[in-house]
Amino acid sequence: MKSMRLLLIALCTLSAQQPAFEPQFTPAGELLLPKDYRDWIFLTSGLGMTYGPAASTTPDNPRFDNVFVNPSSYRAFLDTGKWPDKTLFILEIRQSMGKGSINNGGHFQTGVVSVEAALKDVGRFPQRWAYFGFGRGDKSQPAPAASSCNTCHSKNAAVENTFVQFYPTLLEIATRKGTLNPSYATNDAGH
Amino acid sequence: MKSMRLLLIALCTLSAQQPAFEPQFTPAGELLLPKDYRDWIFLTSGLGMTYGPAASTTPDNPRFDNVFVNPSSYRAFLDTGKWPDKTLFILEIRQSMGKGSINNGGHFQTGVVSVEAALKDVGRFPQRWAYFGFGRGDKSQPAPAASSCNTCHSKNAAVENTFVQFYPTLLEIATRKGTLNPSYATNDAGH
Repeated sequence: MKSMRLLLIALCTLSAQQPAFEPQFTPAGELLLPKDYRDWIFLTSGLGMTYGPAASTTPDNPRFDNVFVNPSSYRAFLDTGKWPDKTLFILEIRQSMGKGSINNGGHFQTGVVSVEAALKDVGRFPQRWAYFGFGRGDKSQPAPAASSCNTCHSKNAAVENTFVQFYPTLLEIATRKGTLNPSYATNDAGH
Repeated sequence: MKSMRLLLIALCTLSAQQPAFEPQFTPAGELLLPKDYRDWIFLTSGLGMTYGPAASTTPDNPRFDNVFVNPSSYRAFLDTGKWPDKTLFILEIRQSMGKGSINNGGHFQTGVVSVEAALKDVGRFPQRWAYFGFGRGDKSQPAPAASSCNTCHSKNAAVENTFVQFYPTLLEIATRKGTLNPSYATNDAGH
């Protein structure tokens, strides 16, 4: 009975563990958009964020961008301040409205415009992180390694290639764990 | 061996099930803010939303509000378009910034200003839903049953007392399941 009890404990522990996240690709190398990304961990939402020169006028209905990350990578980041291999970020871009129902000012979110992703996969991508634009579809080839996505993220991101400077709960953790990129810590932090 | 195998399956199933969500109260009847609400399901984020008359000028740094709901209630809503008893919404209000790091336009999220909550508990509250303001603290008495929160939510919400009209993924579900409040369906839907 004792060995049976140990077996029971081992099997139950195994069944309760969540499987490690594994991004899915088509045979042609396209990343499949995970259907359940809205159930993932929310990192932040911005409205009308502009990395290039600011527009001279503010649009009436700027776009929201919601950022999600797969839960197991989020838990690893809470522990270490770093992203494990196979970390997948989803950027969901939505239209906004100002007046609607009882809302008279500011903006709320409406329909999806497009979806993008960033994936860390050190075996698949020599540049470690790759970027994907799904549009309204469900699969995408990675952007070329020399794309503007790669260039901007590798140059300006606060932790590895990720814009943790815009994820307030994670910026605190990376700062405490000492995992900010040296270039970010020197130039941006505290400004 | 057969009965042992059945027992094993039953125990493993039990261990893999998530416990039902149970809001926690102090002996004085204050709701405790769940520490892990950022790991819950994200419903939407708005910026500078205004339910009263619109301000004559837009503030430079309006506030974001992020809405989270406990995962088991979210899954029930996906199935039924209704909220089970003990559904807890968290509204996290954050400051915004415009210029920072590489961002030159629009707004991104920074520190928490305050946290609020809405709880459905039909045994505890005669009005079924109650509203809580935590500020920066971790516990709160419910607002009085005749508070402006209760009045506005019960009058204007799209599903029960909840502003599903501002949660785009859930609005689709409630519309399909036919669970929109009649007053909302008559006055607001499609406008």
